[in-house]
Amino acid sequence: MSEMFIVSKSYFDKADKFVRTNGKINFAPGSSFADAMYVWENYGIVPDSVMPGLEYGEELHVHNELDAALEGYIKAIEQNPNGKLSTAWRKGVQGILSAYLGCVPEKFSVNEKEYTPKTYAQELGINTKDYISITSYTHHPFYSEFALEIPDNWRWDKSYNIPIDELMQIFDYSIEKGYTVLWGSDMSEKGFTRKGIAVVPEKEIDAKTLSLEEILPEKTITQDMRQVAFDNGQTTDDHGMHIFGIASDQKGTKYYMVKNSWGTSGEYKGIWYVSENFVKYKTMNIVVNKNAVPKEILKKLNIK
Amino acid sequence: MSEMFIVSKSYFDKADKFVRTNGKINFAPGSSFADAMYVWENYGIVPDSVMPGLEYGEELHVHNELDAALEGYIKAIEQNPNGKLSTAWRKGVQGILSAYLGCVPEKFSVNEKEYTPKTYAQELGINTKDYISITSYTHHPFYSEFALEIPDNWRWDKSYNIPIDELMQIFDYSIEKGYTVLWGSDMSEKGFTRKGIAVVPEKEIDAKTLSLEEILPEKTITQDMRQVAFDNGQTTDDHGMHIFGIASDQKGTKYYMVKNSWGTSGEYKGIWYVSENFVKYKTMNIVVNKNAVPKEILKKLNIK
Amino acid sequence: MSEMFIVSKSYFDKADKFVRTNGKINFAPGSSFADAMYVWENYGIVPDSVMPGLEYGEELHVHNELDAALEGYIKAIEQNPNGKLSTAWRKGVQGILSAYLGCVPEKFSVNEKEYTPKTYAQELGINTKDYISITSYTHHPFYSEFALEIPDNWRWDKSYNIPIDELMQIFDYSIEKGYTVLWGSDMSEKGFTRKGIAVVPEKEIDAKTLSLEEILPEKTITQDMRQVAFDNGQTTDDHGMHIFGIASDQKGTKYYMVKNSWGTSGEYKGIWYVSENFVKYKTMNIVVNKNAVPKEILKKLNIK
Amino acid sequence: MSEMFIVSKSYFDKADKFVRTNGKINFAPGSSFADAMYVWENYGIVPDSVMPGLEYGEELHVHNELDAALEGYIKAIEQNPNGKLSTAWRKGVQGILSAYLGCVPEKFSVNEKEYTPKTYAQELGINTKDYISITSYTHHPFYSEFALEIPDNWRWDKSYNIPIDELMQIFDYSIEKGYTVLWGSDMSEKGFTRKGIAVVPEKEIDAKTLSLEEILPEKTITQDMRQVAFDNGQTTDDHGMHIFGIASDQKGTKYYMVKNSWGTSGEYKGIWYVSENFVKYKTMNIVVNKNAVPKEILKKLNIK
Amino acid sequence: MSEMFIVSKSYFDKADKFVRTNGKINFAPGSSFADAMYVWENYGIVPDSVMPGLEYGEELHVHNELDAALEGYIKAIEQNPNGKLSTAWRKGVQGILSAYLGCVPEKFSVNEKEYTPKTYAQELGINTKDYISITSYTHHPFYSEFALEIPDNWRWDKSYNIPIDELMQIFDYSIEKGYTVLWGSDMSEKGFTRKGIAVVPEKEIDAKTLSLEEILPEKTITQDMRQVAFDNGQTTDDHGMHIFGIASDQKGTKYYMVKNSWGTSGEYKGIWYVSENFVKYKTMNIVVNKNAVPKEILKKLNIK
Amino acid sequence: MSEMFIVSKSYFDKADKFVRTNGKINFAPGSSFADAMYVWENYGIVPDSVMPGLEYGEELHVHNELDAALEGYIKAIEQNPNGKLSTAWRKGVQGILSAYLGCVPEKFSVNEKEYTPKTYAQELGINTKDYISITSYTHHPFYSEFALEIPDNWRWDKSYNIPIDELMQIFDYSIEKGYTVLWGSDMSEKGFTRKGIAVVPEKEIDAKTLSLEEILPEKTITQDMRQVAFDNGQTTDDHGMHIFGIASDQKGTKYYMVKNSWGTSGEYKGIWYVSENFVKYKTMNIVVNKNAVPKEILKKLNIK
Repeated sequence: MSEMFIVSKSYFDKADKFVRTNGKINFAPGSSFADAMYVWENYGIVPDSVMPGLEYGEELHVHNELDAALEGYIKAIEQNPNGKLSTAWRKGVQGILSAYLGCVPEKFSVNEKEYTPKTYAQELGINTKDYISITSYTHHPFYSEFALEIPDNWRWDKSYNIPIDELMQIFDYSIEKGYTVLWGSDMSEKGFTRKGIAVVPEKEIDAKTLSLEEILPEKTITQDMRQVAFDNGQTTDDHGMHIFGIASDQKGTKYYMVKNSWGTSGEYKGIWYVSENFVKYKTMNIVVNKNAVPKEILKKLNIK
Repeated sequence: MSEMFIVSKSYFDKADKFVRTNGKINFAPGSSFADAMYVWENYGIVPDSVMPGLEYGEELHVHNELDAALEGYIKAIEQNPNGKLSTAWRKGVQGILSAYLGCVPEKFSVNEKEYTPKTYAQELGINTKDYISITSYTHHPFYSEFALEIPDNWRWDKSYNIPIDELMQIFDYSIEKGYTVLWGSDMSEKGFTRKGIAVVPEKEIDAKTLSLEEILPEKTITQDMRQVAFDNGQTTDDHGMHIFGIASDQKGTKYYMVKNSWGTSGEYKGIWYVSENFVKYKTMNIVVNKNAVPKEILKKLNIK
Repeated sequence: MSEMFIVSKSYFDKADKFVRTNGKINFAPGSSFADAMYVWENYGIVPDSVMPGLEYGEELHVHNELDAALEGYIKAIEQNPNGKLSTAWRKGVQGILSAYLGCVPEKFSVNEKEYTPKTYAQELGINTKDYISITSYTHHPFYSEFALEIPDNWRWDKSYNIPIDELMQIFDYSIEKGYTVLWGSDMSEKGFTRKGIAVVPEKEIDAKTLSLEEILPEKTITQDMRQVAFDNGQTTDDHGMHIFGIASDQKGTKYYMVKNSWGTSGEYKGIWYVSENFVKYKTMNIVVNKNAVPKEILKKLNIK
Repeated sequence: MSEMFIVSKSYFDKADKFVRTNGKINFAPGSSFADAMYVWENYGIVPDSVMPGLEYGEELHVHNELDAALEGYIKAIEQNPNGKLSTAWRKGVQGILSAYLGCVPEKFSVNEKEYTPKTYAQELGINTKDYISITSYTHHPFYSEFALEIPDNWRWDKSYNIPIDELMQIFDYSIEKGYTVLWGSDMSEKGFTRKGIAVVPEKEIDAKTLSLEEILPEKTITQDMRQVAFDNGQTTDDHGMHIFGIASDQKGTKYYMVKNSWGTSGEYKGIWYVSENFVKYKTMNIVVNKNAVPKEILKKLNIK
Repeated sequence: MSEMFIVSKSYFDKADKFVRTNGKINFAPGSSFADAMYVWENYGIVPDSVMPGLEYGEELHVHNELDAALEGYIKAIEQNPNGKLSTAWRKGVQGILSAYLGCVPEKFSVNEKEYTPKTYAQELGINTKDYISITSYTHHPFYSEFALEIPDNWRWDKSYNIPIDELMQIFDYSIEKGYTVLWGSDMSEKGFTRKGIAVVPEKEIDAKTLSLEEILPEKTITQDMRQVAFDNGQTTDDHGMHIFGIASDQKGTKYYMVKNSWGTSGEYKGIWYVSENFVKYKTMNIVVNKNAVPKEILKKLNIK
Repeated sequence: MSEMFIVSKSYFDKADKFVRTNGKINFAPGSSFADAMYVWENYGIVPDSVMPGLEYGEELHVHNELDAALEGYIKAIEQNPNGKLSTAWRKGVQGILSAYLGCVPEKFSVNEKEYTPKTYAQELGINTKDYISITSYTHHPFYSEFALEIPDNWRWDKSYNIPIDELMQIFDYSIEKGYTVLWGSDMSEKGFTRKGIAVVPEKEIDAKTLSLEEILPEKTITQDMRQVAFDNGQTTDDHGMHIFGIASDQKGTKYYMVKNSWGTSGEYKGIWYVSENFVKYKTMNIVVNKNAVPKEILKKLNIK
């Protein structure tokens, strides 16, 4: 699917909300699970070949110029220099987005069949309403919803809040049922190595020395440790990945198998082995299909 | 009730969210209906005499210094100068708030009975959960909820969205039932005079010349005109007032009677007569008791 | 003719040069005689009806939002955030310009005949190469060319430099020959009244009291006074007008008749009477047809 | 003794003076000899155990967040946003200081005896009035007092000014008499190594190669060289240390033995050997007991 | 005497101190009593005719350009762009000062006698060491010296501190003895009218309505009121004047007669009548000859 | 010849133009070929011994402080703080320049003969009018003149524009005729090594590995590649050098021999061997004597 279709649509929405709130949202590059869900549901989707989004003379995505130029433009609009916003400024946003990412097609053909983005999304058969976001923090009551107070949550989307042990149950249940879990996590931790493994070492060590051969003892993570790390700004949401399997090492430590968008880097051809403790500690939130959540948890959350 | 109790609690919450979102909410003075509701529900309330909030050498509220000092402090915290947020900074916020607005009492006595803010709120018997916020804009579907994209909505609270004609029905129904409507509206319009009357004159005129004696013809407001004024930044939410009655002038024009917090100013001792067209045009949102909303509307909104 | 065609083309050129010079030209709104000449010669022209340039929801030109948004965009580009300029940024400039001013038409019809901007300009028969810019300052040698060191001269265009008395001869000669002189002058002077008259009063007086009925004695202007006013920043180029006639008042004072773009304002239905002294003092430069310049002067300038 | 008692009291005084002078003092972290003297004399002192000053979740002093937050707060106050300073702002400063460094105790017990900070200081028996600051520069006359024009001298304290040779006499006399000299000096020099030795090498060399084994020839320092280095900004006051002894190396070069606050770092367990030339060159000022100054010098300074 | 000689010398000193303190003094235009005293004592003085200080094309002092240009220059120097200050920068300061204010003459003639600034000052016979500065505030102990914490006190000069009643005695004693008192006071008060009278009205009134004919009741000023006004930033030092006489109005209210530098403005040809209460309230400090101070006060201050 | 004479004169001119254009030129250090030509022609020249330009306490040119201080000064002037520029500010610029670079001499002696800068330039016999600047870009028509749109072209000087193949002919023709070519080129390319060789390697390689022994295949440069590199900001003008000879390596690759101002650095004692492809790719412009240009090219350019 075209990631740039999602980026383009989300940038447009972000620009609109930035101006309406007088600049009180995070107008930054990137798109989250929530963006993908929202765009898919409201605008549809197109194949990557239809909108590769590389209209600026490079072969790989390099968005610094687009990000800076769009920010310069939208911050000027937000100041409302005429005292009354024009009817043209949204078209100007689109003009910039189209220059860099290409036009969003109204119609396109795949295998000789014609689609609009919306009909194409229907064809794919994914119902975004079946997907829910779940988190686990104690500054809001469990079994209620709240909007994660993080910069990237510019859509102000809500997540369900449950104890971390129940959240961990969902991973296992999902994998068992054959579902992938979209995993929002902090990768800027030292324990998240570039080699294909992520752990929470008991002692602060140099990540470069970590390897599967000599597994170091890990911290045992509690709900409270999660909260402290969120409260002091050390857990952030900086990456979205897919958790799709479970593994264990020679000592019996449990790992989740993660696919991220870094191609075939690392020692396991693009697969990361993330220890259970790491997942417990650094999961910001997950997005899963309702069917991938144990019934008892759905019930506590009053989800049907 | 102590407005400064609400201000102090809201400022503390705002500081917390400002830091968590890396500065991506509006850290500004003032407190909205939503703040009052949230504080009442979560922290309780105290009488004004218990926490008048004037600890800084003035007899009237003058918050510029507090606002600026707290902003200077919290923007420095948000930068996270240690690379890891301290456990002291929230206490520092409280230290500043207490210096200017006084300490929030843990216990206090009213009529020789001892209360905490929470037990006092219970005693007053207002159930904040009975109150809902309603708005009317077309950039979101009707009969759903969305969070108004305005700077003051830093709590990201949602409002129900209904057609303007149904919203107008609620005013009449509420007043008939004896309920007051909390009215969030734009008062910076020229038609909102300082004399006690607010209209939407057909032609742009000087507000100073407006009077009840010679009522000028008004524009007829449509759903679309509301939307245009919201989209181009001309309708903002700058004041909260109470609508409590209905009146009409010599020509039969319908007015809503509004009580605002400006004491006995204006020509009607603190009462404002706001034309139906003005209310239709410039209402940002209302907060009402569910019982003050016609059953059919509640049903459409799926509210029980 | 479409002024917005010239504005749009000039803004595009300005953006290009701003980026190439690392921001070392004046990226400001407005377009000068030189812009009109350059655009006419290089891109052609279109009738106003073909490109009225009002695509942003207003009936009159209000460019503050466009100016600010384009500046925000181009200043971000100039910083070169990718370290290598993209091939998309110029298209983005065009996207913004088209949103506000409309697209520049490749083809259009006038009186059932089809034109491009270039063929339309040819049809009109004006040869921009016949027009020259002339000024009169002593910080460069007379009878040579130099580029006026003023912010608006972002095209770095050169003007011929001649003594002020010879410059004054050109006005008279042009009018006699039936040519209009494009007059770049400073109108921010107190002596340039809003009533339709401009003089250089001997004493500093309140412009509001000036009238044709009681003409006040004027300063006699010298080459040196011109230079002092240019050197100390008091003569600026803030407006372009047309000088088309000569008149004199009851005392025999000579005035030039000026048509500016203020419609029918002033006491003479859009005509200004500007005293000879004012013209001598405050002319920044003129643009005239070579045929409207006395032969002796052309010869000294080595123009054929 | 509690260093944080001194820091807290000095920060409060600094805030007060910053606001009174409209921001024209150096509002920076750190405290100097003069701060310690002033606080001791005016507010007393407490043992470190009574006010360790670590109330922010760390085990070592990490003040960046406090420094930045207090600066943000006080710069806002200094702008005087109400047009009249409140009576609350000093209390807010105290609220911030208490949050990070703990409250300054009014009373406390040591060995079962109760003290206030002032009575405790008396018990310790140090009379701060016996201590004087001495410097040696030629841009003010010798044997007079002047306030060193350096950023850290925010208290505008005066030092006695004497020739450098007499200043050097004081070191020897003090050490002989058993007094320690508080030594304000520049440690950012290349010659001040991290290994436990400081010299002024004749040629510019890499400090890392310096060792006691192969002592390099030094520059011979004059009064004029001191002055040049102060005038061109190369001598700054960046550290306070204690000089307590004299030593010499195998070549007979004289060194002063310095204890600084870096624990047991360096090759001599926290002792630095600083050559006589270095002391002559880079001493900003010293603070000594009057009894540790030769009588002749005291006489010239008119000190009794 | 040449005021510009004092301004030029003080600007040079200010630049030097600004750079030495890393910008931690007030680098602003203007010169105070302390400047005049310091310059007179250390550099001498010249007659106004010798150095009128109008080298920039104006007939009256207009220093905005000089102030801004010198500030731009010195702030760049303070950043120390070479990492080591040059030996040229002070010469550059002098180059700027000489361009605007003229060169400080090494020698000049008055009445055919040749002087240097220093010998001319000697000839005038004023011994600046006989002059002392006195103030009256309670945040420092009385009968001691302290440096007034105000922006203009960039020389960090000390004043003697005495009770306000004793300060008031000095005015009367001085005038009786025929001495003029240099009076540093706040003139931005509403009660300091432009008409020639200054009072402290009991009620806040419009200064424009004040007149000698209908004297309004005044506040009675206490030491504490002085302190409050200094602490909350309402008393500032904005002007230096001369008090030379005493007068009283028809109701017996006592006034001091003040000569300020506004020429013959006001209703009394440049003389201001300032009520005793105003002087008590708003005197920042005074500079007087020691002989103009009552003996008892000198004794308390330990001045001989 | 004195480079600092040229720097000083050019800085003065730059300051003048910066103020006249309201800051719309590049006020940066450095001087170009065009500066040298302009100064030589208009102000003359002096020997280096007469004006070495080292008046600030260093033995080598270190201009950071001068550049920053002059910029601080001139940016303040440009703001025009008096609303009318003074007659003193240019003198202030000269005061700063003289402080750092020494005074420009009116008269001086060389070999016992007295000169002014102008007569000395005449004596040297170089006619600057014989020198022309030539470039090769396609965004302007060939065989016309345009002003290169680069930050350093603050004099807005024009260059002749010709195809790159003809430009290359000029190098060979000049060298054959014994003329040196002033070569403005981009040296920030990786291919321009610090070892004495410059090439355009086919593949991106590490410049450190380049050597004459193992010559790597180069890209073949076209007119279009030149243009792309100019348009995307990768070709800049960062250095001026002299091309004086031709050489070839063992494989027959042609190199130009370049003398730059880096003394005897590199492996060939200050000579650089720059491949024909590099010169084709990265030449910004050249300045040559008209006699060093083939007749056919002069003819196309209409130069006599």
